[in-house]
Amino acid sequence: MLQCFIRIYFCFQLQAGNCSPVTMSGGIALVQGASRGIGFQFCRFLVLTRNDGIVIGTCRNPEKARELQALKEQYPDVLEIMKMDVTKHSEIQSTAERVKEEYGSLDLLINSSAMLHPSGKGETSLREVTAEDLTLALTTNTIGPLMMAKHFAPLLLKGTGSFGAEATDKSKQHRAILVNMSAKVGSIGDNALGGWYSYRMSKAALNMATKNLSIELGRGKDKVICVSLHPGSVATDLSRPYHKNIPKEKLFTPEKSVMRLMNVIETLSLEETGKFLSWNRSELQW
Amino acid sequence: MLQCFIRIYFCFQLQAGNCSPVTMSGGIALVQGASRGIGFQFCRFLVLTRNDGIVIGTCRNPEKARELQALKEQYPDVLEIMKMDVTKHSEIQSTAERVKEEYGSLDLLINSSAMLHPSGKGETSLREVTAEDLTLALTTNTIGPLMMAKHFAPLLLKGTGSFGAEATDKSKQHRAILVNMSAKVGSIGDNALGGWYSYRMSKAALNMATKNLSIELGRGKDKVICVSLHPGSVATDLSRPYHKNIPKEKLFTPEKSVMRLMNVIETLSLEETGKFLSWNRSELQW
Repeated sequence: MLQCFIRIYFCFQLQAGNCSPVTMSGGIALVQGASRGIGFQFCRFLVLTRNDGIVIGTCRNPEKARELQALKEQYPDVLEIMKMDVTKHSEIQSTAERVKEEYGSLDLLINSSAMLHPSGKGETSLREVTAEDLTLALTTNTIGPLMMAKHFAPLLLKGTGSFGAEATDKSKQHRAILVNMSAKVGSIGDNALGGWYSYRMSKAALNMATKNLSIELGRGKDKVICVSLHPGSVATDLSRPYHKNIPKEKLFTPEKSVMRLMNVIETLSLEETGKFLSWNRSELQW
Repeated sequence: MLQCFIRIYFCFQLQAGNCSPVTMSGGIALVQGASRGIGFQFCRFLVLTRNDGIVIGTCRNPEKARELQALKEQYPDVLEIMKMDVTKHSEIQSTAERVKEEYGSLDLLINSSAMLHPSGKGETSLREVTAEDLTLALTTNTIGPLMMAKHFAPLLLKGTGSFGAEATDKSKQHRAILVNMSAKVGSIGDNALGGWYSYRMSKAALNMATKNLSIELGRGKDKVICVSLHPGSVATDLSRPYHKNIPKEKLFTPEKSVMRLMNVIETLSLEETGKFLSWNRSELQW
């Protein structure tokens, strides 16, 4: 009863924000990097708005992910937590095998985990750039998501099309959606300030991965929509050192950002595969 | 006498190809990845066309770089070979220190070395992608060039503006030029075929580095022009497995590609910093 009330309240909030129609049915979603920030909010949103769906949240240390554990206690039949480190490719592979055994397919994959820089602050000049830090950022932000795509692609290609827009022409119906959480600072064309070498470069490379994936997974009879999404400036741990520089009205809560992003995801069609979209659905330059 | 004749012949060839005015004076240039392919041809071009200039060619194994050694024998006062592995950052640092001691500044830095893929062939599908291969490609094609920029930036900022166009407004005169050899397949917007994950992603990230460098090294009184260049389809070892798929008239010799690229480099001005330019000077999308 309480859960039902929470769902109705949450849905009302969404409608008030002119967001997507809510409480949809079914679907198996996996959020990589689900312990906090945007990843956790994706899990929360999906749990609250998807009747009869399954949400899999992966993170390195489930035992330390208190919010995620609390959500699991509230929705034990909907949310499944899997321990996985996105920088360990054997763990990605075994997680994909487990999801295959348990569910057989996947409808939505969100690659959410990212690091700004190992120090927590982006480089302000070349002097601060080191090969080690850049390698770490690329490993988490770029290589990890691509390895996720590699191991989960066979499951996505078997999806049921539960997420995104339904195509009137059945030949244009997608099977699943793959979201790489990117960032506007990963746009080369939009870059006017410089700095943040590791983060910017890792996201530009990730955007290329998205484009490549959209081509490879859009070729056959079964198709997967692949997009890079920009969440806006969001009040998460990643951006914490910079919150004071962002006008209050432009700093989204993770809840608000995810609401907007899910509104984009829920209305995606195959025509938009391979694009770099913002939370407000505007297309960003590469 | 013979050397003079070779220079005159080479210059005549350039003029026949409608390339840049030739035999210019002075300048200190460093070509990273000088043992073969485009990098070697850059060295050769610079040695043949720059009177009183200095050309530094770096490579991992100078003892195996026969063409480069032969060039050095012909032009011992112009060409200096330095042993350096671009994936070893202590070697980059010590090479920069050596160049600083010997010459005090640098006018042109060309980051040329690259690998398509450790196997020699780009990935045709996700199944062939591995984290190890992607890491190796990023290390050579992306992190190496950025580390070069980091350690050589102080020398470039002291350059004498010997390369590129001379500005009529002295406040817009650059000190030096930094070239990252990129590739059209590193353009996300232009990507219509997919595949070649490691190479494409490493070049997209390198393009972001170029953009960032153009901002950071264009901020102060002393400015460095930074560009990504696309050499065309060039008959080098890197692209050898694909030569048979390229129409003969579109497959450049390394000599021809470098002639065109030097024509672009020799006419660069600060207005073009941060751009991704093709051998024919057209601007490529990111």
